Amino acid sequence: MRVALLGGTGDIGAGLALRLAADSDHEVVIGSRDADKAADKADEYEDTLADARIDASVDGEANPDAVSGSHAVILAVPPYYVTDTIDAVEAELDDEAILVSPAVGIDVDDEGFHYDPPGVGSVTELAAEHAPADVPVVGAFHNLAAGRLSNLDASLDVDTLVTGEDADAKSTVMALAESIDGIRALDGGPLANSSEIEALTPLLINVAKYNDGMHDVGVEFK
Amino acid sequence: MRVALLGGTGDIGAGLALRLAADSDHEVVIGSRDADKAADKADEYEDTLADARIDASVDGEANPDAVSGSHAVILAVPPYYVTDTIDAVEAELDDEAILVSPAVGIDVDDEGFHYDPPGVGSVTELAAEHAPADVPVVGAFHNLAAGRLSNLDASLDVDTLVTGEDADAKSTVMALAESIDGIRALDGGPLANSSEIEALTPLLINVAKYNDGMHDVGVEFK
Repeated sequence: MRVALLGGTGDIGAGLALRLAADSDHEVVIGSRDADKAADKADEYEDTLADARIDASVDGEANPDAVSGSHAVILAVPPYYVTDTIDAVEAELDDEAILVSPAVGIDVDDEGFHYDPPGVGSVTELAAEHAPADVPVVGAFHNLAAGRLSNLDASLDVDTLVTGEDADAKSTVMALAESIDGIRALDGGPLANSSEIEALTPLLINVAKYNDGMHDVGVEFK
Repeated sequence: MRVALLGGTGDIGAGLALRLAADSDHEVVIGSRDADKAADKADEYEDTLADARIDASVDGEANPDAVSGSHAVILAVPPYYVTDTIDAVEAELDDEAILVSPAVGIDVDDEGFHYDPPGVGSVTELAAEHAPADVPVVGAFHNLAAGRLSNLDASLDVDTLVTGEDADAKSTVMALAESIDGIRALDGGPLANSSEIEALTPLLINVAKYNDGMHDVGVEFK
């Protein structure tokens, strides 16, 4: 299927684009507000893949064009751009389209990184509130370290938790996640459980900050 | 050293008492508001250990007596009893005593388990605010499944995160945690980082709730 990574020029978008292009048969297109920037980044990712001796293509388009024809639309933008990004692309969403929300609100101070959710409880629920009523929203990919995704030499062996109300959409996103080698998708339950999943992301950064030798930390539930 | 488990008749207290008695050389005493109940439970734990062919002793005493002479005092009580429990034992705390906070506020509804912290942000910080100023408070053991700890046939191979301001107290508690086979202690940073650690506990229960074959779920950071 065609997978659009909006905000695909950012860290987590880059990591997911590279891994999906490298490991899956999905058509990967990155979106940006700036079509030229998207196209340049897509070329850069193809070069990175070629350097790793992987022959895979990544397209880059303006966000609405990236969304058109895509089955999974990943909102890989900073949390404060999630609603604007939905507004910018909703007219282009296919009948079958699923919006996927990986963004997390994080604050930092001298002591560490802290969860900073929107009023509704989580960015995933914010996306669901803002999305057109007939478009399922699924939370996924919140706890993956961008640096580790982007380093194609690094093994993953980590879990991602998937939340949502629409069982079919959730299954599709879980399969999409598992099309990346080394990612196991677990069911996190309905959207109301997204908050604790998003809160795990600043915790992972704190673990990296306070423990020598740990960086780009992921998690395995066991 | 002597380790007091206040609320040692409850689930997490039982699990920690059994594992510490089985795996470490520490003197393990469980505390309860009711001395007879503590003594009965201690006998029960000794029987459980004997059934597993482990010859180890567990004492049971009223909370203040359990605390007297203990180096680590683990507040293994429900979150709403943490401050009362500190009040009940603070006169007995040794000069070297460390208070250890494993409790987590959790709500449940039809959709899952949710983090329900006290106003100060976490139970660990609540304990620290309430403890005598010269007694270090360390957060630990928040994310360990009681059922898995109590099943001495189950392997752990999980992590616990430790927070605190006092580096020596933190080191002592990290070593205490690692005296249990299969637990790795990681540094979570200062107390202000406890909230995200506590929020992980309802998430672990949700993972067990929504994924077949997963129960008593723990976590490995990797």
